Amino acid sequence: MIYLDFAAATPVNDKALKAMGPYFAEEFFNPSSPYLPAKKVAAEYESAKAVIARAIGAKATDLVITAGATEANNLAFTALSLGEAEPTFKILYLETEHDSVRRVAEQCGGVAIQVLPSGLIDLEDLKGKITDGTELISVSLVNNELGTIQPLAEVAKIVREIRLDRMRRGVKRQLLLHSDASQALNLLDVNVARLGVDLMTLNSAKIYGPKGVGALYVSHEAKLRPLVAGGGQEQGLRSGTENVPGVIGFATVVAEAKKHVKNNRAKYRELRRILLDELQGYELINKKHTLDNFVILCYNGLDAERLVFLLEDKGVYVATGAACAASKGVRSHVLKAIGLSDSEIAGSLRLSLGELNDAEQMHEAARIINEVVLAERARING
Amino acid sequence: MIYLDFAAATPVNDKALKAMGPYFAEEFFNPSSPYLPAKKVAAEYESAKAVIARAIGAKATDLVITAGATEANNLAFTALSLGEAEPTFKILYLETEHDSVRRVAEQCGGVAIQVLPSGLIDLEDLKGKITDGTELISVSLVNNELGTIQPLAEVAKIVREIRLDRMRRGVKRQLLLHSDASQALNLLDVNVARLGVDLMTLNSAKIYGPKGVGALYVSHEAKLRPLVAGGGQEQGLRSGTENVPGVIGFATVVAEAKKHVKNNRAKYRELRRILLDELQGYELINKKHTLDNFVILCYNGLDAERLVFLLEDKGVYVATGAACAASKGVRSHVLKAIGLSDSEIAGSLRLSLGELNDAEQMHEAARIINEVVLAERARING
Repeated sequence: MIYLDFAAATPVNDKALKAMGPYFAEEFFNPSSPYLPAKKVAAEYESAKAVIARAIGAKATDLVITAGATEANNLAFTALSLGEAEPTFKILYLETEHDSVRRVAEQCGGVAIQVLPSGLIDLEDLKGKITDGTELISVSLVNNELGTIQPLAEVAKIVREIRLDRMRRGVKRQLLLHSDASQALNLLDVNVARLGVDLMTLNSAKIYGPKGVGALYVSHEAKLRPLVAGGGQEQGLRSGTENVPGVIGFATVVAEAKKHVKNNRAKYRELRRILLDELQGYELINKKHTLDNFVILCYNGLDAERLVFLLEDKGVYVATGAACAASKGVRSHVLKAIGLSDSEIAGSLRLSLGELNDAEQMHEAARIINEVVLAERARING
Repeated sequence: MIYLDFAAATPVNDKALKAMGPYFAEEFFNPSSPYLPAKKVAAEYESAKAVIARAIGAKATDLVITAGATEANNLAFTALSLGEAEPTFKILYLETEHDSVRRVAEQCGGVAIQVLPSGLIDLEDLKGKITDGTELISVSLVNNELGTIQPLAEVAKIVREIRLDRMRRGVKRQLLLHSDASQALNLLDVNVARLGVDLMTLNSAKIYGPKGVGALYVSHEAKLRPLVAGGGQEQGLRSGTENVPGVIGFATVVAEAKKHVKNNRAKYRELRRILLDELQGYELINKKHTLDNFVILCYNGLDAERLVFLLEDKGVYVATGAACAASKGVRSHVLKAIGLSDSEIAGSLRLSLGELNDAEQMHEAARIINEVVLAERARING
């Protein structure tokens, strides 16, 4: 098996599994209980949060642990003010965002910011759309279908200028920058202050941690409302008995990711190079400004869904885009946004590389993909 | 260590841990991915949901998997209609409910239904408070502090009569019955049709399954709105990549719970009897209509928080009430609701028995508690 769909799911790594182990059965206590073994668990839970927070230059109390990136993205939008008359352009979001941002933004009347054919945010479009009513701008750090790394610091600079201008003019409305950084932590040096974000989504399941755990970084500027009320855990912003093993596992993989950023980048640069050298008859979609573990290939005229099926038969697992969108048979809104035609979208494959891959697998994958593509072209042409 | 706080947290049992194992690393695929190994995971996830659903007489598609009971309780309240002018008494909830019901009910202007000194719902108070505006009634199956088993079928009968009456009179408003059954599944035969509920909360972490997983049963009568939007998982009602190992573990313990209901009841009846026989100088708070694994003791004149601390020192772990409330130093609203004085509340201990306990431990616990209580009485009086 050659698995090339790490953007959809990653296996939990051994260190994380080992770290989580004791918290299922031996150290199972409720962190809110008053006796010492429970307080020890509570302290270890807080330490784990501190590890995650430190990795992005924040403090444990700046994090709200959630059941994953989707919940964290949803929670970010509770920073919006509640008002009778909604201002225009209150929410701006990048048109290539994941559904967990798009759906919520749309529900709140959000307006999409365009991307350039490169997949990068169109900063002029952003500037043109910010009004005195704009409260929240949501731009992912890395796109989940293309791997495109957005110039978040530049977006943050614009946000800061607008804030200053508003202050001068006595406009009191908040302007917050949210970023979904789900795919980024093992390949980019992520720091909330340097990036200039007020809200940032993290995801355990995309960086070899357990599923069902994520976090939202919340700066002091942002005031959230809970999506889930109750016992008052997570500073009252997300109630429910803490998922202790999940957070312990999450912290373990965040620390690992942070430690190996440089090596990971070098590894994936090399693996990507092998694929691009040896694959034939494709057009590369994500040429620049991308994480090296994303390889987006367009085989114009072919049906990528059929390719996925044929490749699976030969033990190579790839995707046509986001798993949750693909499962509904929806054409990628991301590929459409960067200007691909319907036929190009239909012929596009997402290869996302990960820890289980090595150079040998890349040679083999390239050989198999070439073979399948060639056969498909032959079949279609007669 | 004698742990007597299973209502706060339970260790994950071996069968569940073993069942979850492969889904962390080997079977890590995203259930929404298109290739066969992912589809296999998706099928196993659905089978696990079917096991949980069948245990309560429902179908997999009637369940929305959540990150726990708190989220499930919150989700239940999205069944309320959205309207400009809120009707009076739209929400009725039992005053002894867990904070994850109370807080949300209060936010929505809910009105509390009183309990009798027995802890049972005051059905006359309920009947008196239902108006033509009432849409949702929330009554837990088992109280989390007392173990009191509510006569849910009687509540459901009242709900059915009101519905019929509304139909006759042409009143179109929905009337739904929600029940938090978090504590019940291993000691009661829970069946949604027999209980007559439209919405029911289940919890993995209280029945020896993993933390961070729960479910809401949703009848065809109830139409929910998602708390968390995105990729459209869980019938569009709760987006986010599925927590596969969590749900596999949850299903395993639900099946176990169901299988052992009778044996569990016999076991805890006997353990409870030992405690009540051998303990001295207490007043029993939960005399009747209670799960046998709950033993609520009042040592009037003593400080239960001090007792918890002294007992811990001798290796006996007990609680003063719900862990999440206790951690905030809040006096129990449940004990107040059943008519206890402040001094009685201050002197009350919750012992909740579980799988790790046996008769020998009960003898030992009774001896230690008696000793500690005697010493405390002596200290105070002398």
